[in-house]
Amino acid sequence: MDALESLTKALSRIPGLGLKSASRIAYYLLDRDQVLNEQLAQQIRELKNRIQYCSICGRFTETDPCAICNDPNRQRTVICVVERAKDVQNMEATGEYRGLYHVLGGVISPIDGIGPQQLRFQELFDRIEKEPCEEVIIATNPTVEGDTTALYLADELKSRKITVSRLASGLPVGGDLEYADRLTLARSLRGRIAISQHKTD
Amino acid sequence: MDALESLTKALSRIPGLGLKSASRIAYYLLDRDQVLNEQLAQQIRELKNRIQYCSICGRFTETDPCAICNDPNRQRTVICVVERAKDVQNMEATGEYRGLYHVLGGVISPIDGIGPQQLRFQELFDRIEKEPCEEVIIATNPTVEGDTTALYLADELKSRKITVSRLASGLPVGGDLEYADRLTLARSLRGRIAISQHKTD
Repeated sequence: MDALESLTKALSRIPGLGLKSASRIAYYLLDRDQVLNEQLAQQIRELKNRIQYCSICGRFTETDPCAICNDPNRQRTVICVVERAKDVQNMEATGEYRGLYHVLGGVISPIDGIGPQQLRFQELFDRIEKEPCEEVIIATNPTVEGDTTALYLADELKSRKITVSRLASGLPVGGDLEYADRLTLARSLRGRIAISQHKTD
Repeated sequence: MDALESLTKALSRIPGLGLKSASRIAYYLLDRDQVLNEQLAQQIRELKNRIQYCSICGRFTETDPCAICNDPNRQRTVICVVERAKDVQNMEATGEYRGLYHVLGGVISPIDGIGPQQLRFQELFDRIEKEPCEEVIIATNPTVEGDTTALYLADELKSRKITVSRLASGLPVGGDLEYADRLTLARSLRGRIAISQHKTD
């Protein structure tokens, strides 16, 4: 197996790239400037060393705490709870959200042996204890597991004086946050529906 | 711009990868074993150093001449002429062809300033002079430029005692060899149509 074939094979291991796409990329890399290839190689090599988890929100960052958790201009009393670190990026792309984030690291899924203990719920509750929080926006995917996780979280937060909301449907059911276009995602953020409302008597 | 964003941007420069695909790949690389990322980085870095052009057929190879040009079991009197080095791989994937190859490096395209002098025609004529050749199979893409190139080559070879054939249509017109499935490509090879026939009187 020569260098071209082995690179093609390595690239085709990446989910979403078939053998034909991988081969096309390998030939493209063969054709272009070596400086760009060196840069790409360097970026792939260093990626995992430079990126870590933010100790507050759990998203990927180069600095700890991350730029969002550290930003004094963000609305610090609203926390958007997402499944995966990359969902933060999707939410940010809407340009509509100015609060903080909390990454769960997944969803409750008994079949896969993932319960609340395996996710970053306790870290969220600790944050809410320490810093004043007015609203938790649950932005898990509109799937069975995402809905289950949202219900669990809403239930856990019921006793606290916090408004809990969920992204409005508008996202296709069974779909994934990653594939929603920005407008749909922005609309679902604006039209979010309260699951339980904190009443100020 | 952090490491994740800069890698995403670098990946999105590869034709066929949009920003979303690039971002998905970057997150995938962040998630998986560092050893695999080191390997991939190494393969990308070394690719252009290890791969060169075969001095005979013009395809990419680690050894010169390439494995096909060097293979005593290949049918050495048949040469398949392709546009690009990667087309060799597509032809090989059919498993139907046992002859040699010749990569032109492109097609005749006056609009882009590419005439016969810019392509590897002379190298082909030199090969035919030196080694006995019975048939030249023209496997340029079924596009206007590919057809023009095929006609030019057939015309140039007319005076020589060589059968010149062209891959049968069966490939969608205006399409590209790269996207043909193996069966279609294999069928078009089997049903190739002679453009000019060398008659043994």
